[in-house]
Amino acid sequence: MSFPAEFLAIAKRVNNWGRWGSEDELGTLNLITDEVARAAAATVRTGRRVPLALPLTQQGVQTGLIPGRVNPLHSMVAINWQLFGPDTVATSDDVVTMALQAATHWDALPHVSHSGHIYNGRPADSITAHGGAAFSAISAIPHIVSRGVLLDVARARGVDRLPVDHAVVPEDLEAAEELAGTRVRAGDIVLIRTGHMRLYLSGDRTAYAMPSPGLSIRTPEWFHARDTAAVATDTLTFEIFPPEIPNAWLAVHALHLVEMGMLQGQNWNLEPLSTACAEQSRYEFLLSAMPEPFVGATGTPVAPVAIF
Amino acid sequence: MSFPAEFLAIAKRVNNWGRWGSEDELGTLNLITDEVARAAAATVRTGRRVPLALPLTQQGVQTGLIPGRVNPLHSMVAINWQLFGPDTVATSDDVVTMALQAATHWDALPHVSHSGHIYNGRPADSITAHGGAAFSAISAIPHIVSRGVLLDVARARGVDRLPVDHAVVPEDLEAAEELAGTRVRAGDIVLIRTGHMRLYLSGDRTAYAMPSPGLSIRTPEWFHARDTAAVATDTLTFEIFPPEIPNAWLAVHALHLVEMGMLQGQNWNLEPLSTACAEQSRYEFLLSAMPEPFVGATGTPVAPVAIF
Amino acid sequence: MSFPAEFLAIAKRVNNWGRWGSEDELGTLNLITDEVARAAAATVRTGRRVPLALPLTQQGVQTGLIPGRVNPLHSMVAINWQLFGPDTVATSDDVVTMALQAATHWDALPHVSHSGHIYNGRPADSITAHGGAAFSAISAIPHIVSRGVLLDVARARGVDRLPVDHAVVPEDLEAAEELAGTRVRAGDIVLIRTGHMRLYLSGDRTAYAMPSPGLSIRTPEWFHARDTAAVATDTLTFEIFPPEIPNAWLAVHALHLVEMGMLQGQNWNLEPLSTACAEQSRYEFLLSAMPEPFVGATGTPVAPVAIF
Amino acid sequence: MSFPAEFLAIAKRVNNWGRWGSEDELGTLNLITDEVARAAAATVRTGRRVPLALPLTQQGVQTGLIPGRVNPLHSMVAINWQLFGPDTVATSDDVVTMALQAATHWDALPHVSHSGHIYNGRPADSITAHGGAAFSAISAIPHIVSRGVLLDVARARGVDRLPVDHAVVPEDLEAAEELAGTRVRAGDIVLIRTGHMRLYLSGDRTAYAMPSPGLSIRTPEWFHARDTAAVATDTLTFEIFPPEIPNAWLAVHALHLVEMGMLQGQNWNLEPLSTACAEQSRYEFLLSAMPEPFVGATGTPVAPVAIF
Repeated sequence: MSFPAEFLAIAKRVNNWGRWGSEDELGTLNLITDEVARAAAATVRTGRRVPLALPLTQQGVQTGLIPGRVNPLHSMVAINWQLFGPDTVATSDDVVTMALQAATHWDALPHVSHSGHIYNGRPADSITAHGGAAFSAISAIPHIVSRGVLLDVARARGVDRLPVDHAVVPEDLEAAEELAGTRVRAGDIVLIRTGHMRLYLSGDRTAYAMPSPGLSIRTPEWFHARDTAAVATDTLTFEIFPPEIPNAWLAVHALHLVEMGMLQGQNWNLEPLSTACAEQSRYEFLLSAMPEPFVGATGTPVAPVAIF
Repeated sequence: MSFPAEFLAIAKRVNNWGRWGSEDELGTLNLITDEVARAAAATVRTGRRVPLALPLTQQGVQTGLIPGRVNPLHSMVAINWQLFGPDTVATSDDVVTMALQAATHWDALPHVSHSGHIYNGRPADSITAHGGAAFSAISAIPHIVSRGVLLDVARARGVDRLPVDHAVVPEDLEAAEELAGTRVRAGDIVLIRTGHMRLYLSGDRTAYAMPSPGLSIRTPEWFHARDTAAVATDTLTFEIFPPEIPNAWLAVHALHLVEMGMLQGQNWNLEPLSTACAEQSRYEFLLSAMPEPFVGATGTPVAPVAIF
Repeated sequence: MSFPAEFLAIAKRVNNWGRWGSEDELGTLNLITDEVARAAAATVRTGRRVPLALPLTQQGVQTGLIPGRVNPLHSMVAINWQLFGPDTVATSDDVVTMALQAATHWDALPHVSHSGHIYNGRPADSITAHGGAAFSAISAIPHIVSRGVLLDVARARGVDRLPVDHAVVPEDLEAAEELAGTRVRAGDIVLIRTGHMRLYLSGDRTAYAMPSPGLSIRTPEWFHARDTAAVATDTLTFEIFPPEIPNAWLAVHALHLVEMGMLQGQNWNLEPLSTACAEQSRYEFLLSAMPEPFVGATGTPVAPVAIF
Repeated sequence: MSFPAEFLAIAKRVNNWGRWGSEDELGTLNLITDEVARAAAATVRTGRRVPLALPLTQQGVQTGLIPGRVNPLHSMVAINWQLFGPDTVATSDDVVTMALQAATHWDALPHVSHSGHIYNGRPADSITAHGGAAFSAISAIPHIVSRGVLLDVARARGVDRLPVDHAVVPEDLEAAEELAGTRVRAGDIVLIRTGHMRLYLSGDRTAYAMPSPGLSIRTPEWFHARDTAAVATDTLTFEIFPPEIPNAWLAVHALHLVEMGMLQGQNWNLEPLSTACAEQSRYEFLLSAMPEPFVGATGTPVAPVAIF
């Protein structure tokens, strides 16, 4: 098995290694300048806020298909404990164990490597068990706040959810831009709605897992041309899965994370956002999607919020 | 041991039970209306963003003093794993175990009970091991976005950090308001800087733990009068510790969480924020401090961001 | 819903509260005297050793049916880490998160309570989140070594595995005793083979979980009459499940753990033991089944070994 | 930094690679034949049983010195939960997170590598995050039951505990053999008591950690000559620490685990055993020290028991 020629050709065209210097660890997040963030805040009109994270629970989206990627396990280490004696205040404390890529999350750039490298040409073996990722770990990112744009592909195509074999192509993105009434610009965080999340929300996490609609291998060049800062979807696999091209496993992951240095989000619940955007006929908003700064981690749960 | 009379008298004056209905689970977060959030976004001038979370690591602020409250433990379940065969993309996955109140966090309202009750008069025994908190769990909160105001008490008092026995009183808050050039208003999230975090940042987590400066039992009435939505500090204990009044253990916790239904944050790193505010002579900002929606949890790590 | 009359009648007859004093935490393990252990060692003839634990892995017997009872999750915190510099020895370290009742395990006596009590009349609310079980925790048991007797009910009944609706009754136990050529006596640890484990071993953990053959509510009196020290089975549910008597949920658990104070084991892999016993025509052996001394725990994984 | 010449010379003399075939994963455990186990059981005289594990708790021996090696964290996922409705039995369930090398444990052979290899010449990089150790993992060991011999060096030297800079040399082992009245023979598991555990038991885990008395680099040849099956000690570091020879970090680990393929145990509580042996004037016993079969793990907690 090896990388298809088409993959290698696209990789060359979208590669951002060195673009922000040989020491850079942030990739396309560099595109979110203060001015971009300021303009993003200026989109706020009503103060309505829409959260985008799924609840963190054992009933989360993981099915056991991906080894080690466990749903959050919540347990108690104290319940109404009167630590200071009888008739004093009582405290309750919780502990959680979870895979960082299990729920609504960001993949950090080193989550994927190919041909021995991660983003910016760093060696893949700079990721270790004792230290995690030495470069571009999620903890290297100070903040993720920018303009968010919902590209509601399902709504633009007139369906509740895309068929499971639908590869989202640039034409879909542009149809959704048309619906949105705004054009994706440099530094934006683009949220792609397929509607596939409805399967999970209706209780069928097995069907949600895969097969899944998702981004086509033709989209990285589109995001590259638009200087998108980050992309998130409402699916487990992010890209169409199984892949469009035989053996091109996680090709979009590799192009985004390794070649472009562009963060990607998965399992974002875009259903309430879709409703909110349609009600307001506005598909742009201020998006805050702060990573939890787990040192050395290759991903993080995230609780994004869209502010209209 | 029992509750001091002073505590009970204040409790009566600041009590918010029933104020937002007998079914309410949000407490003072109800004060963050769309209009408050809209006005908060309107404070953004430059797009500068300042993150407020400490790194999540085994070297976190916990010392073992509080049983079960463990620093985050990060481990790997996959490193450059070629799941799809040789010469394919490789993935890395992480797992974490942590106490939800260990690092920069929000306490949910049921984190503390007293006299058998949590906020809004719900029974304390509605918190269970299998379900966590049945009411006012962190997962019941859809979003936390409002105007943030830094009350930089240390700077207002002309010191790098307050002495460890300094109880922050209303006069301190008002001196900091004076410095800030803004008055705390309904729905604000107030960040109280003592400078005590410098001890941890300099490597001394034992000294950071306690004794600690922090809020006086006189401050809940001040926050109540101002209709503050939430309060966070740069200390482990939030309130002055050991307490000002003998046996009044965690009295401010009990007044805020149980009586007022007001969220509180701890271990927020306000040092870079203090610098940013002083540089810009602006102590107000848009604050996004989204809880991770752990179902049933009595707290959550949080990665807050101030947007100027 | 309440306890069936039949349950209450049996409970009265098998109750051991106070039998070893009001402070006792060990229950029927008291029956394993030094003399019993000495005699058990004297059964050893060949030195052949047969292990009885299932591998500890994410692919364990848990299906998600029992909330919070997660299969072991293994991850790495160091892999070939040269902590002392280049060209030194390198170390690998592991971390695990698991439910203590997830795999081959012992239930400690307080794992089950009924009518507000655990074994020896202790209050059920002596189990807390911060301390675990205050009485009869698994850590209170110094050792579990005695004569083991395999009652191979499946083999005695001439089947590979019992039908899923087969309640194992005293007549089954006695048929297995006949096959074993030994009579169960005071202080023995009795292992009951149903053959149901074959479903899990063949890859079908859903079928293994339930419905399941298992002990009938008629067996506790038999074990009580024989002064059995502990009982383990090759099923997830231990007793017949769903129960024989409507609403008598986990009735055998309650009789064994609460009334008799008798430890019980689940998910023991008795297939290789069955083969070994049949080959040697010997169904008695020295059994070491040491609990891991988790302080305050209501159960423990166990790696039992039969020595012939 | 590189390996001292003395280390390399000893390594050559004690190397067991290929001794039990090129596919072997068990090393010196091969020396525990059925006959050895049978003879071990024949040492039992009284049935007295002595457990050797420390309690598993957050107050365990780990101090944070070794990154990622966390003491066991016990929490509850159910407490008296009436899963089947009111007035039914109630169940309590526990979860634990722990480092497998944190407490009383066995190191599996791949816990240490040097010069790119683990036992039997296998490549060190056969240990991965997703699979753990591919060879000689703790789960590859079916059972550990043999004759145990306590070499009570502290008692033989007339002290409660050895000085922290005492390297245990072959002469110490032979003085302890003299005291024991038995000679270590092929297949034995040898327990070396330094008395250093008294520091931990008295509450001082910092002093217990290091400096520590322990095995000298001269002892592996002694164990090799005696065909010892496994060795365990009552210290955290197993060998003298800091090492006798500059830069010979964990030299005994490397000789035992990598060269000889001999399992080693640490943090075994040998104090009650020392008392029991002295009282009975017998230092040999049947030892059961079964590993928990964590798939792919490089170590395991163990609850050993000595049966007299």
